[in-house]
Amino acid sequence: MELLHVTFIGGDSGGWRLTGTPFRIGEPLPAVGRIAMVEGRVAGGIWKLRGVTSNARYVNRAERDTLRAAQAGLGRPEATCAALIPIAKSPAWWELAQDERRAIFEDRSQHVAATLRFLPAIARRLHHSRDLGEPFDFLTWFEYAPEHAAMFDELVGLLRATEEWQYVIREVDLRLERD
Amino acid sequence: MELLHVTFIGGDSGGWRLTGTPFRIGEPLPAVGRIAMVEGRVAGGIWKLRGVTSNARYVNRAERDTLRAAQAGLGRPEATCAALIPIAKSPAWWELAQDERRAIFEDRSQHVAATLRFLPAIARRLHHSRDLGEPFDFLTWFEYAPEHAAMFDELVGLLRATEEWQYVIREVDLRLERD
Repeated sequence: MELLHVTFIGGDSGGWRLTGTPFRIGEPLPAVGRIAMVEGRVAGGIWKLRGVTSNARYVNRAERDTLRAAQAGLGRPEATCAALIPIAKSPAWWELAQDERRAIFEDRSQHVAATLRFLPAIARRLHHSRDLGEPFDFLTWFEYAPEHAAMFDELVGLLRATEEWQYVIREVDLRLERD
Repeated sequence: MELLHVTFIGGDSGGWRLTGTPFRIGEPLPAVGRIAMVEGRVAGGIWKLRGVTSNARYVNRAERDTLRAAQAGLGRPEATCAALIPIAKSPAWWELAQDERRAIFEDRSQHVAATLRFLPAIARRLHHSRDLGEPFDFLTWFEYAPEHAAMFDELVGLLRATEEWQYVIREVDLRLERD
C-alpha cells in the first residue's frame, strides 16, 4: 500500500476536459478548461490541489474487505467520465473525537453501507490534503462510464443529504470528460 | 485547533543540546549536537524532520477529555529536559483497518490508559509525518523536569513492551537538555 502523492492541475492542458460544475458549497475555484492528474509535485496551471492516498481513517475490517472486493480501479477504457470533488470540513468536525466522527460517518450517515451498490460502476480514489496545509481536506476522484452518469448524480445527492455533510463547509463538484 | 507545521532541525544550533540516544530500532540518524524545533518549513541543519499536529486518530471522546484535562503544555520553565522520538511503523500496521489499529493501540496496549499517570509531569506533542512523505510516521516531542527523568524512562519502557510496539520498525530516542 504505497502512498501516492498526487497533484490535480487546473488549467488549459491535461487529459480531462471540464464539462460543468453542478454543485458547490462556499468559495469557487478559478475557472479552468482542463484538469491534469499527475503523480508528485509539479509546476504550472491556474490552480493546483495536492493530496496523498493514505490509510483509511474510519472503515473497519469488514467494510474495508467488502469495499476492496467490490471496487474497480482507475483507468478503465469505458470510464470516460470523471469528477474531482475537493471538500473541506468545518473546525467542529475536526474537533470531534475519533468515535464521534466514526459514528457520524457510518453509523448515522452510512457513508460505506449506502454507497456499496454504486460499485463497481463508480471507481473512486480518495486523497488526503488537510495535513499538507492545503485549502481542502480531501480530494475525491471518481471515474465512470457515460451510462452511469445518472447513477453518479444519485450517489453524490445521497451523500449530500447525510448528517456527515452538515460538516462540509466547502465543496466544488468538477465534472470532466476524457479526450 | 490550528494545525501546526513543525520542523525539527538536527545540527549545531538550536536551543536543545543532545545528551544521549539511549534507544534505537533500525537505522540511526546522522549524529548532531543540537536540535532546533521551529514552526514552518526551514533550511539548514544536518537533517530535518517535518511533522504536523493534526486531529487525533484513535482516542475516543472520554479519553480525549481526560487527556486534555490532565496534560501540561510545552515551554514550562522547569521542564528543561526533552526527548524527540521519531517512529516509523511497519507496512503491516498501515495495512490494518481502523478498528484493528484501535484495538491494538488502546484495548490491548493501553496507550492512553497506562500512560495517564505520567501526566502532567511529562508534556507531549505528537506530530504526524507519514502523509508528508517523511522517513518517519510520527515525531513525538516530550518535555519534563530533571526530577522526572526516571519517570520518563518508565513511560517509554512501558510503551516499548506493548503489542503496538511490535509494529515499530524504526525509532530513535533523542534526549535533550535546554540551554
